[in-house]
Amino acid sequence: MATTTPIPTPSPGQTGTDPDLPSLCRALAERAVRAARELAAVPGARKAACLCDAAARIRADLAGILAANALDTVAAEAMGLSVAAIDRLRLDRARIEGIAAGLEAVAVQPDPVGEVLEERVRPNGLCVRKVRVPLGVVLFIYESRPNVTADAAAVAVASGNAIILRGGKEAARSSRRLVDACRAALDAGGLPVDAVQLVETADRDAVGILLGMADAIDVVIPRGGEELVRRVTAEARMPVLKHFTGNCHVYVDTAADLAMARTILVNAKCQRMGVCNAAESLVVHRAVAEAFLPAVAADLAAHGVEIAGDDAVCRLVPAAVPATADDYACEYLGPRISAVVVDSLDAAIDHVNRYGSRHTDAIVTADPAAAERFATRVDTAVVMVNASTRFNDGGELGLGAEIGISTDKLHARGPCGTRELTTYKYIVTGAGQIRS
Amino acid sequence: MATTTPIPTPSPGQTGTDPDLPSLCRALAERAVRAARELAAVPGARKAACLCDAAARIRADLAGILAANALDTVAAEAMGLSVAAIDRLRLDRARIEGIAAGLEAVAVQPDPVGEVLEERVRPNGLCVRKVRVPLGVVLFIYESRPNVTADAAAVAVASGNAIILRGGKEAARSSRRLVDACRAALDAGGLPVDAVQLVETADRDAVGILLGMADAIDVVIPRGGEELVRRVTAEARMPVLKHFTGNCHVYVDTAADLAMARTILVNAKCQRMGVCNAAESLVVHRAVAEAFLPAVAADLAAHGVEIAGDDAVCRLVPAAVPATADDYACEYLGPRISAVVVDSLDAAIDHVNRYGSRHTDAIVTADPAAAERFATRVDTAVVMVNASTRFNDGGELGLGAEIGISTDKLHARGPCGTRELTTYKYIVTGAGQIRS
Repeated sequence: MATTTPIPTPSPGQTGTDPDLPSLCRALAERAVRAARELAAVPGARKAACLCDAAARIRADLAGILAANALDTVAAEAMGLSVAAIDRLRLDRARIEGIAAGLEAVAVQPDPVGEVLEERVRPNGLCVRKVRVPLGVVLFIYESRPNVTADAAAVAVASGNAIILRGGKEAARSSRRLVDACRAALDAGGLPVDAVQLVETADRDAVGILLGMADAIDVVIPRGGEELVRRVTAEARMPVLKHFTGNCHVYVDTAADLAMARTILVNAKCQRMGVCNAAESLVVHRAVAEAFLPAVAADLAAHGVEIAGDDAVCRLVPAAVPATADDYACEYLGPRISAVVVDSLDAAIDHVNRYGSRHTDAIVTADPAAAERFATRVDTAVVMVNASTRFNDGGELGLGAEIGISTDKLHARGPCGTRELTTYKYIVTGAGQIRS
Repeated sequence: MATTTPIPTPSPGQTGTDPDLPSLCRALAERAVRAARELAAVPGARKAACLCDAAARIRADLAGILAANALDTVAAEAMGLSVAAIDRLRLDRARIEGIAAGLEAVAVQPDPVGEVLEERVRPNGLCVRKVRVPLGVVLFIYESRPNVTADAAAVAVASGNAIILRGGKEAARSSRRLVDACRAALDAGGLPVDAVQLVETADRDAVGILLGMADAIDVVIPRGGEELVRRVTAEARMPVLKHFTGNCHVYVDTAADLAMARTILVNAKCQRMGVCNAAESLVVHRAVAEAFLPAVAADLAAHGVEIAGDDAVCRLVPAAVPATADDYACEYLGPRISAVVVDSLDAAIDHVNRYGSRHTDAIVTADPAAAERFATRVDTAVVMVNASTRFNDGGELGLGAEIGISTDKLHARGPCGTRELTTYKYIVTGAGQIRS
């Protein structure tokens, strides 16, 4: 079985950057470049077969993965990780089956590579084709959950990219075991094994070194807390595809079906509070504030959710606390929501554009013109009209597995799956044409 | 007639940053944000009519533009600009007609905004549409030529974006006159006049201040010398769409028609030497080196072009000078070309990937398998098979007017026209769906 070529972990007590670290990182990146160049030419069927083989190897290694994960979990408990974090880290038979099934789900998606996006023949006979190609080398920096390791590797391989995985140290042993299964499948299928590499050194300087290698790494995708994303954005010398915060809004319009609005808001806020597509901000048109706010406040209170509101909200909801400006910009990921009353649709749009994070924003309205105006003018990846923000997810939108949800506007926006890890090139074929 | 709201030029002799400059830049950027939000909802026909009106106003202001340009030209001569630079700066009746016709050419292109890129209905009834939308606010930093001012404004308005233009000071008066025509047309058409703004201060700190405004400016496009692009890339806090160097290669394969290869190489290098899609590097397969190099060297010598070659080239071409590693990476933009002899197609691919700038790279070959391998494995925006590199141009490829040629891989690659100044959003329409 092929194994990763690890960057050695520095001995305990060692401080400062390992003098060999830059050259080790350079070697790792160059292996990725070579692997990417090979993988770019591999047909979709062979990539799909490799992912299915990786799934089979993960199922076959159930005991080994569980043992590695048990060590990770014990260490995490000793490190004092939260119960929620340890729950995200822990694998069992069902979760491992889910990881294997996830690889198979990516395998059945159409291969984006080689798709001819446009084709035209010029008057001089030149044939101009715009062809979808992989990005090349992806650096993925993420936190803890082992299933993300497998998902990211699968999306990268399916789209013909080499991926360098830098996961949280809490899941190091579990991730290593999953990566070994992927690399063994690449090797068995005659695909470049370095298409999937794990950065295993505990030396945090490795990330900084890799972020400087714009000549070898085409894009970095940070997925984790705000601090991680900010650090990567500040240091990266290559483009960053950000999975940033989700300060998602629900706007209840004057023409809203208020029963629908209550259902949507409660689902968007309460169905799962710790996720990026949960609602964090409620915006209510003044004309329906009195009919809507006390009722929905009772719903939210029943779920233990506190409201931080402006003056109008606090008048209508005695239990609400006064909101600060920070509240309106906050991604709580917990039992609190900001709320404001606005005088018009345009004031609602302004509020969302001012405080939102361009992730997911919803309007509840029976007025198509209001929905259209909101959808056009709110600058966000996903606009929900009369639906819960919780549907912003590659699977829920029918887009397939994702490596993250981009809050950027350039290159890729919203769920990022295999197609979002591609670019294009023009291939122009002639018979000796020259320019006059 | 509407005029730009200029940022005042600091008094002569003033040093350091004008204390008002940050707030003036902020006000300018916020006007652009508001204009972008309005323009995003404007139908294509109204944008097209505005561009045609701007063309008419430019034709009507012929005398005024010529007078402004004469002042620019006199000042440029006094500053000691090169003859070539002054030629690029100088306008005459024909060039002004070309600028007006360029605006009309953009006006007749299809409106990219609002295009439904994908649409699907989910099993739960959610309708998921992926819709093309403008990027928002574009900061365009470029050098001298006045026609670029008008082209960039037209491409931006046609794609629903607000643009902030920061051109070279040599063309300041000419650009101002052209921008005034565009703003007057926007105003007359009821479109937001601040969709086109010119940064007129001579204070170079304005650029640095604008590059920090990631909250207001969605993308910066630098187009000019290498130093400008490097500075912008280093300082920008928003994504950069780079129009970087064009170190374009022509590879002459063992299966090349050598007469065709000579014609293509001479056209690619000599038809216009100072442009980004001119060839700067020649790569020749060893099997045809003896038959090809002396002959093409004579062609190049007739055009005054010197060859900087490796040992094998220097043996076959006595007039060649030895190449350094810098030669292989150089964008000469003048009468010199680097040349190497390689032992295989893959060695040629490695040379191009190592030294190329991902702009335009050509292969001359009669072997379709070699062409396919080169096209797949060379990491470049445009691969030319049996055609001159000089065809990498929006017009020549049938893509329409461009704001630049991207050497980046993310978001947009190759010629950047109206579509490349767009992104997309998902608009999801439901009837109260919540996630279970």
